[in-house]
Amino acid sequence: MGGDGGVALPTVVESREWYLAAYAPENVPTSDHLKLRSVTVSLEYDSIADQHVALQLLMISVDPYLRSTITGRDGDLYLPRPPLNKVITGFGIGRVVRSKNKNFSEGDIVISPFSPIAEYFIVPSEFLRKIDLTANIPLPNHLSCLGVPGFTAWLAIEVIGNPSTPGSNVFISAAAGGVGMFAGQLAKLKGCRVIGSTGSDEKVQLLKDEFGYDDGFNYHKESDFDAALAKYFPNGIDLYLDNVGGKMLDAVLNHVNTGARIVISGMMSQYNKIPAEREGVKNLLNMVGKGVKMEGFLCGSYLNQFGEFAQQMEKYMKEEKIKPKHKINHGIESFLDSFGSLFSSSNLGKVIVQVAT
Amino acid sequence: MGGDGGVALPTVVESREWYLAAYAPENVPTSDHLKLRSVTVSLEYDSIADQHVALQLLMISVDPYLRSTITGRDGDLYLPRPPLNKVITGFGIGRVVRSKNKNFSEGDIVISPFSPIAEYFIVPSEFLRKIDLTANIPLPNHLSCLGVPGFTAWLAIEVIGNPSTPGSNVFISAAAGGVGMFAGQLAKLKGCRVIGSTGSDEKVQLLKDEFGYDDGFNYHKESDFDAALAKYFPNGIDLYLDNVGGKMLDAVLNHVNTGARIVISGMMSQYNKIPAEREGVKNLLNMVGKGVKMEGFLCGSYLNQFGEFAQQMEKYMKEEKIKPKHKINHGIESFLDSFGSLFSSSNLGKVIVQVAT
Repeated sequence: MGGDGGVALPTVVESREWYLAAYAPENVPTSDHLKLRSVTVSLEYDSIADQHVALQLLMISVDPYLRSTITGRDGDLYLPRPPLNKVITGFGIGRVVRSKNKNFSEGDIVISPFSPIAEYFIVPSEFLRKIDLTANIPLPNHLSCLGVPGFTAWLAIEVIGNPSTPGSNVFISAAAGGVGMFAGQLAKLKGCRVIGSTGSDEKVQLLKDEFGYDDGFNYHKESDFDAALAKYFPNGIDLYLDNVGGKMLDAVLNHVNTGARIVISGMMSQYNKIPAEREGVKNLLNMVGKGVKMEGFLCGSYLNQFGEFAQQMEKYMKEEKIKPKHKINHGIESFLDSFGSLFSSSNLGKVIVQVAT
Repeated sequence: MGGDGGVALPTVVESREWYLAAYAPENVPTSDHLKLRSVTVSLEYDSIADQHVALQLLMISVDPYLRSTITGRDGDLYLPRPPLNKVITGFGIGRVVRSKNKNFSEGDIVISPFSPIAEYFIVPSEFLRKIDLTANIPLPNHLSCLGVPGFTAWLAIEVIGNPSTPGSNVFISAAAGGVGMFAGQLAKLKGCRVIGSTGSDEKVQLLKDEFGYDDGFNYHKESDFDAALAKYFPNGIDLYLDNVGGKMLDAVLNHVNTGARIVISGMMSQYNKIPAEREGVKNLLNMVGKGVKMEGFLCGSYLNQFGEFAQQMEKYMKEEKIKPKHKINHGIESFLDSFGSLFSSSNLGKVIVQVAT
């Protein structure tokens, strides 16, 4: 092991990678937009630049924010627009197969926050973080509770929403999703009453059985969100973690208590629509009379709190107070369907693609 | 003077008062909804309850929030719904004509925050605040810079919005209105660059000539608010004080800077619409990528800061750093037209009805 080039791999590998063939301004992206191709990657030691490493991708997190980057327009989440015909990136875990940084050795398992969605690739080492395998944390957990969804949930509940009164009434939409499942568990740990909305009866059951939600409902079965919220929140809503936007947000604004907070981490129901066709939110005036605070955020703005988050979350995991649930699809070729499944209410758990073991 | 009954007034007076004849769910309220009638008020000393005073109304503040209370539905600003056939109330200044509280003497001039809009009336003394006439502050100022609009503007700029960086780009809608005119001046005193939108060219001139705005535009002349904001905010918006809601708020969401704040004190463009017909705001997703905080408020929730506000505002007024502008209409009979004028962009200054001198 070490920076001497290794022995197990050939110096050139075939690597399949997902690239952006066309921007997708609306609807769920398809194989017209995201395509798989095979490229050749040289792993020859001398061909790797200093302070770079070659990684074999083990697993990749499949996250909704990616949707907003490939619309071809500015705005949405204001994340950089990936160029056409280039490999797309995500939050992944890789194995070091060649290293030109003395802090990384072949065989190291690392978190790669801007990981090409490719079987093999070479990246600058500065953003990589080594996973301590002695901690015995299953690798997928690093993409869920300890990854983007867990960090997002923690920021929403512990930092931004921060319901300080036990018994606060908390509502979470996309409640069984990557962010929602952890947000609900964190809110329960703070002593809140937590209700979730999700997209299937099976997921409602999951909310209650595995994530400790007090109750939940299947929004596909509710023709009147206002009536549903009146039923589940007879004492109003103190904190709403909005992962969907649109009509649900509008309905929530009719049930907010004085001083309520609305934390927006995403808007699943709106990502596939062009801005002009998004559902207008009509009840914002209610924010005045109720003194409501609404705040959007991206976790990239809070990286200085990542250490605090990881420490608290690892503690909760050791104490089995936080449980992740993963939907693991196999093979890099499953990425596009995995991505599309985020928008169809069909997943149970955080969606991850396992590319290699 | 004192609690002995006085001499100048008869013991019974005719008093004209505005009462609510019908709720106005939408559109600008008319004489179908608000009607003037004459009633008899006994000023006989023995007929006045303990700790009550009889007041002659001198002037009344004409404020947009009243619109939201007379829709006949709940929600809107969540303020109490006034009962039908009863006199309506507002923020007024009166002269004590009979007193059964030793702290108030006949001839005292008082602020009456829940003042019947009536020529004479009897109220509990607990909410009255005596005006110190030796301070030589013109009476209308107590309803503008030192009243609800000034307090609202101060909270929006100094407490909730609080642009901490000199040079921050501040946008204010309804910029020449009761709240806007003071908010703009307060933001300028904090070193901000301040742009306002208003409803006439004459008012745009007023913004620049009298209130110190850096610039402003007549929204009636802008077919594309997005383009207007792009022109006036080449470096984006750091703080938006929203007094109108709807399309302007939606356009602002396309021009917010990272970490921008939106403070909502009211929504003039929406008050006359039923909730289902309000303009939906479609660009809320931008709050995520830009980490925007949006907050609504009513000044009633911040009464503990009124003293601090009054002290700072009086200081600014003495130093002539804050200038009020009033549109004073005469006679209690002018109240309905004065109220309607709030929604027609026709006023220059804070609208006040002078009932007596």
